[in-house]
Amino acid sequence: MKTIINFAFYSGIILLLAISVPVFSQDHPNLILTRQGVKNIKASLGKAPLFDKVLAQTIAEVDAEIRTIEVPIPKDMAGGYTHERHKRNWFMMQKAGVLYQITDQEKYAVYVRDMLLKYAEMYPSLPLHPTNRSYATGKIFWQCLNDANWLVYTSQAYDCIYNFLTEKERKHLEEDLFRPYADFLSIENPRFFNRIHNHSTWGNAAVGMIGLVMNDKNLVNKALYGLDIESNNKNERDNDGGLIRQDGQKNAGFLAQLDGSFSPDGYFTEGPYYLRYAIFPFLQFAKSLANNKPELGILEYRDSILKKAVYSLLYQTDANGLFYPINDAQKGMSWNAREVVTAVDLAYFHYGKDPMLLSIAEKQGKVVLDEAGFAVAKGLADGLAQTMRQKSIAYTDGPMGKQGGIGILRTSTAPENELCLVMKYSAQGMGHGHFDKLSYSLYDETGEIMQDYGAARWVNIDQKGGGRYLKENNTWAKQSIAHNTIVINETSHYEGDIRIGEKHHPDLFYFHGSGPVQVVSAKSQNAYPNGELHRTLVLVKEDHFRHPLLIDVFRATTQTNSQFDLPIWFQGHLLLTNFEYDPELTTLNTLGDGHGYQHLWKEASGKTESGNAHINWFSNGKFYSMLSVVDANDELIFARLGANDPDFNLRHDPAFIIRKKDKKDATFISIIEPHGAYNPVSELAEHPFTSIEKISLLHDDTAYTVVQFQNKAGKKWTLFLANDDASKEDTHSIKVNKKTYEWQGPFSLISNN
Amino acid sequence: MKTIINFAFYSGIILLLAISVPVFSQDHPNLILTRQGVKNIKASLGKAPLFDKVLAQTIAEVDAEIRTIEVPIPKDMAGGYTHERHKRNWFMMQKAGVLYQITDQEKYAVYVRDMLLKYAEMYPSLPLHPTNRSYATGKIFWQCLNDANWLVYTSQAYDCIYNFLTEKERKHLEEDLFRPYADFLSIENPRFFNRIHNHSTWGNAAVGMIGLVMNDKNLVNKALYGLDIESNNKNERDNDGGLIRQDGQKNAGFLAQLDGSFSPDGYFTEGPYYLRYAIFPFLQFAKSLANNKPELGILEYRDSILKKAVYSLLYQTDANGLFYPINDAQKGMSWNAREVVTAVDLAYFHYGKDPMLLSIAEKQGKVVLDEAGFAVAKGLADGLAQTMRQKSIAYTDGPMGKQGGIGILRTSTAPENELCLVMKYSAQGMGHGHFDKLSYSLYDETGEIMQDYGAARWVNIDQKGGGRYLKENNTWAKQSIAHNTIVINETSHYEGDIRIGEKHHPDLFYFHGSGPVQVVSAKSQNAYPNGELHRTLVLVKEDHFRHPLLIDVFRATTQTNSQFDLPIWFQGHLLLTNFEYDPELTTLNTLGDGHGYQHLWKEASGKTESGNAHINWFSNGKFYSMLSVVDANDELIFARLGANDPDFNLRHDPAFIIRKKDKKDATFISIIEPHGAYNPVSELAEHPFTSIEKISLLHDDTAYTVVQFQNKAGKKWTLFLANDDASKEDTHSIKVNKKTYEWQGPFSLISNN
Repeated sequence: MKTIINFAFYSGIILLLAISVPVFSQDHPNLILTRQGVKNIKASLGKAPLFDKVLAQTIAEVDAEIRTIEVPIPKDMAGGYTHERHKRNWFMMQKAGVLYQITDQEKYAVYVRDMLLKYAEMYPSLPLHPTNRSYATGKIFWQCLNDANWLVYTSQAYDCIYNFLTEKERKHLEEDLFRPYADFLSIENPRFFNRIHNHSTWGNAAVGMIGLVMNDKNLVNKALYGLDIESNNKNERDNDGGLIRQDGQKNAGFLAQLDGSFSPDGYFTEGPYYLRYAIFPFLQFAKSLANNKPELGILEYRDSILKKAVYSLLYQTDANGLFYPINDAQKGMSWNAREVVTAVDLAYFHYGKDPMLLSIAEKQGKVVLDEAGFAVAKGLADGLAQTMRQKSIAYTDGPMGKQGGIGILRTSTAPENELCLVMKYSAQGMGHGHFDKLSYSLYDETGEIMQDYGAARWVNIDQKGGGRYLKENNTWAKQSIAHNTIVINETSHYEGDIRIGEKHHPDLFYFHGSGPVQVVSAKSQNAYPNGELHRTLVLVKEDHFRHPLLIDVFRATTQTNSQFDLPIWFQGHLLLTNFEYDPELTTLNTLGDGHGYQHLWKEASGKTESGNAHINWFSNGKFYSMLSVVDANDELIFARLGANDPDFNLRHDPAFIIRKKDKKDATFISIIEPHGAYNPVSELAEHPFTSIEKISLLHDDTAYTVVQFQNKAGKKWTLFLANDDASKEDTHSIKVNKKTYEWQGPFSLISNN
Repeated sequence: MKTIINFAFYSGIILLLAISVPVFSQDHPNLILTRQGVKNIKASLGKAPLFDKVLAQTIAEVDAEIRTIEVPIPKDMAGGYTHERHKRNWFMMQKAGVLYQITDQEKYAVYVRDMLLKYAEMYPSLPLHPTNRSYATGKIFWQCLNDANWLVYTSQAYDCIYNFLTEKERKHLEEDLFRPYADFLSIENPRFFNRIHNHSTWGNAAVGMIGLVMNDKNLVNKALYGLDIESNNKNERDNDGGLIRQDGQKNAGFLAQLDGSFSPDGYFTEGPYYLRYAIFPFLQFAKSLANNKPELGILEYRDSILKKAVYSLLYQTDANGLFYPINDAQKGMSWNAREVVTAVDLAYFHYGKDPMLLSIAEKQGKVVLDEAGFAVAKGLADGLAQTMRQKSIAYTDGPMGKQGGIGILRTSTAPENELCLVMKYSAQGMGHGHFDKLSYSLYDETGEIMQDYGAARWVNIDQKGGGRYLKENNTWAKQSIAHNTIVINETSHYEGDIRIGEKHHPDLFYFHGSGPVQVVSAKSQNAYPNGELHRTLVLVKEDHFRHPLLIDVFRATTQTNSQFDLPIWFQGHLLLTNFEYDPELTTLNTLGDGHGYQHLWKEASGKTESGNAHINWFSNGKFYSMLSVVDANDELIFARLGANDPDFNLRHDPAFIIRKKDKKDATFISIIEPHGAYNPVSELAEHPFTSIEKISLLHDDTAYTVVQFQNKAGKKWTLFLANDDASKEDTHSIKVNKKTYEWQGPFSLISNN
C-alpha cells in the first residue's frame, strides 16, 4: 500500500491506476502456491525424491477418492459420519487443487469445482448445526472452529482452480458460499472471531485467506484487525471455561493474536499440543499474506515471533518427538503431525534454511507440496541435514513474558538418548489449563518415566462423548492430584477455579540449564492462600551413576495445620518397596471425595521408621527407583486411578503418594534414579537395583535447605540450596554437623569423599 | 559302534585297533565346532557380512570382559549377583572359546583356562547351593537346571581350548571339575536327570557333551540312555507340581526325551516358550553327536523330529515373531531369542537349506559363530532369503499324537498382516500346564487382541520372588478364569488339580485350515465331571467386511443346574456397550473366593433384553467389537485383575464376563470383528464402529447349531454346524424358520441374500 501511495506523489495517472487495480495481485494461484512457485516445482520434478514420493502418494490418494463426491447434510458430532466426511472433503479439495496446479490434469479441477458447487447448493439454506453444544455452533460442523478449518483448506483449493472456473461459476460460489460463509464466521459470530485463542486464529485465517483469494479487502481487514472488540461480553466463557474476552484485551484479529498468543520467546500459553494445532493457521495465513501483502512484513512481525513459535514447538518434545502433554493434551501427538510438517517446511524456507530442521523433516518423511516443501526435499537430497539438538531452555509465559513459564532440562544418557525434565510454573493456560503449579514430568528415550495425565478426552472418537472433552477432564485431569505436585488439604490449586487461576501465576526463581548440575527452581505464592510452594529440581550427571539423577526439593508452607500430599505418577509396574504396607486385598475404597481424589482407589498404605521410603519399578524394559526422605508419621499410599468412572473413561494408572499430616510446613525430598534394563528376549536383568543407599535432609529453613545422599559404596554428595536468594554472585555459608560450608550462587552440589 | 563291531568279523587286528582307539575322534574342537569347519570359516571370512558383523560384536564384547575374572562363592537366587555372574561366565567362556578357534589369539584361550582353573579350585569343596528351594538344588546355582546350562556352554569352551591346555591342566580340570560336576548332575540327582522334561534335557546334554569332549563313553551312555529308571519315585513332584516320573515312563536319557517330549509332528507339550528353552540343549547335543557319533543318525532320529520341533517353534508365533504365551510363559519372548538363532541356523544347515529360514535369520540379525551360522550368513549374502509363510496348522499333543493338541488358524488381512487364532485343546503340559481347556487367544499385526495371561512370573528379576514362579501363578495364572474359556460354578477345569489334569485331555473334533472359512472344533469330556464342553471357532474372510471375523460357538452341558462364566480377556480400553450396567463407583469387591475369582475386582454388572451384548474397545491404534447372543437373564460383568495381590505381582487387565445361571446347558455365541483404526498423530478415526448389526442363535441341540448374523446393510449370513458328526462326506439337513437347508460336512457358512 505504502509503495503505491508514494507513486501518487509523482503521477496522477499512476495514482489512478493504483486505485483501479486491486491492492494485491489477481494472479492465481496466489495464496500458498504461486504461479512462479508452481513453475519452479514443475521444472525440478525428479530432483528431490521425497517431494516426488509425497506427490505420488497424494495422486494415489486423491485418485482413489475422486470418483464419488459426498456432501451430506450436517448432523454428527466429531467422529460421526457427516463430520468425518466434511473433514475429509476439505483435505481432498486442498490436495486436488495442488495436484491440478502441479500436474495440469483437469480431472482434479473438475473434482474441486463439482464439490464446491454442491456446497454452494447446500449452504444458503443450512441452519445452525443441529447438535447445538458449542458456545459457537457451526453450520457444517458442531462448532465454528471446524467450519473455519474447512475454509482455511478450501480457500486454497478455490485459489488453485480459480482460473479454471468460469466467471459465472466464481460469482455463484462467492455469493452463495464463500462470502456468507466468511460472514458467518466473523460478523455473525463475534464471540468466536474476536478472541485471543486458537479458535479465533483459525477464524481469522479462514476469513483472511478466502478474502485474499476473492480480493476482498474488507474481509482481509476483518481478519487482520478483528471486529469491534466491544461486541464481546467481558464475562462470557466458552465450553472449556475460557474467557471469551480476556482481561485487558483491546484488540482482536490476526495481528492481535500474534501479539497476545505467545510469550516474547514463542511459548504458547495453552501448551505445545494446542500450539501444534494453532501454528497451522498462523503459518498458512502468514504465508498467504507474505505472498499477497509483502509490505506487511508479517513473517518478521514481532521479532519473527512465528519463527520462535516453531522452534518452541520442536523443543517441547521428548526424545521421540512426542509433545509434552501439558494442560489439555491428548498423548501420542508428535512432530509427525501434518501441522508440524507444514511448520518445519515453512520455517526452513523462510527462516534461514536451518539444516537441523531437515533432520526433523527426514524423520517426518513428508513434505508439503509447495515451494517450501520442495526446498526441504531438495535440501535432504543434497545431504544438508544436521541432527536437531534440543537444548535445556526456560520459556517465559504471557504476552510480555512476565507470567511464569516452563523450564526444560535435558542431559544425554547415551548416544541419541537423554533424560528430560519438564517443570511447569506457567500461567493458567486459559480454558485448557490445569491446576498443576510447579508440577514436573520426566522422560527418557522410552517415553514417560513420571507422567502428566494429559486430557481426559478421546479426540474425534465418537464413542467417547463425541470426541469432546469428557466430564472427567474437569473432575480428574485438571485437578492437582492428577499431577506430580503438592496438594494441600485435598484441595486443588486455586481451589480448582479457573477464575482464580487466571489472576495468578508462579514465578521462576532461577534456571541453570548447562553443565553436570542443572537446576530449575520456581515458587508459587497463590496456589494456596497464605502459603507458599517452592520447588527446586536438580538434574545431576555424575560419573558414579550409570544414568543421571533427579533430585526433587519441594517446600510448602501454610498458616494452619494442614495435610500435604505429594503424588508420584510413576509409569510402570511396582517391583518392591523398602517398607511394610497394608494392602487392600478384598475391598477397595476411594481415597477422597473431591478435587480428583474421588477417582482414586486406595490400594495400600504403609509407614517406615527407616527415614527413607524407597520404591522400585519397571517400565518399558527399564528399572527405576525413587528414595524419599520420610518421617515415621508420614503415610505412604499406593493409589490407582479408576473410581467414580461410570463410562470407563479413565486409564487405570498407578500412583505413589507421600502424605504429611498436621503440619504447617512440609518439605518433600526425593531422588529418582533410572538404573537398569531388562529384555524379555534375553531375560537378562542388568542393574535392577538402585545404587543409592540413603538420602537425608541435613538442614531446612527459610534461608537454606541441605540434602545429602550416598551411594552403596559409601560415597556421599551434599546439595546446598539458598531458598530466598537467586543471585549468582552472592556467597552463602552454613554450619552443618559442626562443619561450615561456603558456596556462591543459589545452589551447590559437592562430593564429600 | 555297529560299524566297528562289524569290522571284527574280518580281522582280529582291526578289532584290536578298534578297541584300543576311542570310539570317536580325539580331534579338537569336535563338539559344535570342528577342525574342518573352523578351517572353512577362516577361509571365507569377509564373504558373509552378517557373520563378520557378529564376529566383530563378539570380539568387542569378550574383549571388554576379558580383563577381570570373577568366580564368586554361589549365594544368590536368579537375578542376584552370584547367579548373574556365573551365568555371564558361561556365555563369556563359550564365546571366548569360539574366538580362540576363529582368531587364533591366545588371550581368549588364556581367559577360558584361567576361569576354568578358578572353578576347579572352588568346585571340590562346594556344598549344595545355600538357597535350598528347588526339588533339585544345584551347586553353582539354586537349581541343577542352571548348573546344567553352565556345563552345556562350558563344555564347548573346554573343547575349543582342549589342545591349548597341557595334559596336566586337562587332568586337573577333568578330575576336580568336570567329572564330579557331571556326576553331580546325573548319579547324584536322578530326580533331575531321569525325567522326561526340559530340565532333564539340559542335564542329559550337559553330561553327554562334556563326555564327548573328555572321550568318556560312560558319561555319553548315561546321557543317551539315562540312569536306572527305577531310581525315580513314581509319585514325587517338582516345584511346579510336575511329576518326576511320568505314568508309564520306561526309559530316560536323551533318546527317551526325543521320544517322549514331542508329538509326532513336533509339538512340545509344555508349549512354545519352554520349547524355545529346551530346543537349545536338544540341538546342541544332537549336533555334538552328529559330529562325533554319526552312526547314531541323531538328526534323522524319529523321522527328523528335531526338524519338526524347530518348525513347530517358528509356527507358534504371532505376526511379530512373539511366541503364543500358552501355559507358563513370560510374554515378550520371540524368535529373536538366542536359542532360536541357534535353531534356525542348525535347521538351515542340516535340514535342506530352506530359504524361508533365511528370512527369519534376517529379522534376527544374528547368526551363531559356527559352520551353520556361516552358511546362513552366506545364504543371506547371496540373496537366497524367501519370506516365511506360516500356515494354518493343527498340532497334535502327546508322544503318540493322541492327546489333543492346538489349532492355529491364520488369515491375511493386508500385505504382511494377519488375523491369527490359537485354540488350545492339548494335554495338561506337565507342571507348566494351565487349566485352560478349549481356550483361545487372538492376534493381529499389533499383537494380542484376546490375551492369554501367560505366567505370573518375572523371569530373572530378583525383586519378584527371586525371578521364580510367584504364588499368583498357581492362584491366578493357571486357573481357568484367567483364560478365554468357560468356567462352571467358579471351579477351574479338573478342579484345578494337576493330578486330575494329567489323566485327561480334550480331543480335536475337526480342523479345516484353508479357504475363506477356516474352522477348528474340539471337545472336552473331562474338564468337568458328567459334562461336556464343545467349542467351534470359525475364522471368516468375507468381502463385505474390511477384516476377517471370528465366530465363537461354545456349548457346555452339565447334569445339574450350574453357573457358566465365559470371560473375554480383551486387550485395550472399553469404549462403549449397547447395554446399561451398574458401575461400582466408590467401592470395589472381589468377584469370588477361589479358583482365581479372588483376584478379580467386580467393576460393573449389567443386563440387556436386546438379545445381543455388544462391547467396543480400542487397543494399539485399532478398534474392535464383540457381539454376543445373550438372554435377558444373563449377567454381563466387567472385571479387573488385581485383588488379593499384596505384592503387586499382577497386571491390572480388564475382562468382560458373560454369566449364565441356573442352567444345565449353556451355549455362548459371539462374533468378534476388528474394524477400524485411529492414529493419535492424524487424530482421524476410521471405521470406529462395528459393521455387524445383529447375531442370533436360530437353532441349537445336540445334533446341530445354527447361527445367523447380519451387517448394517441388512445382508445376512448363516452358519450351520453339525455337533456330533465330523465327517467331511456326510450330508445334513435342517429346517429353520420353515425353510430346509442342506449341506455336506461338519460346517457350512452361507450368505442369505
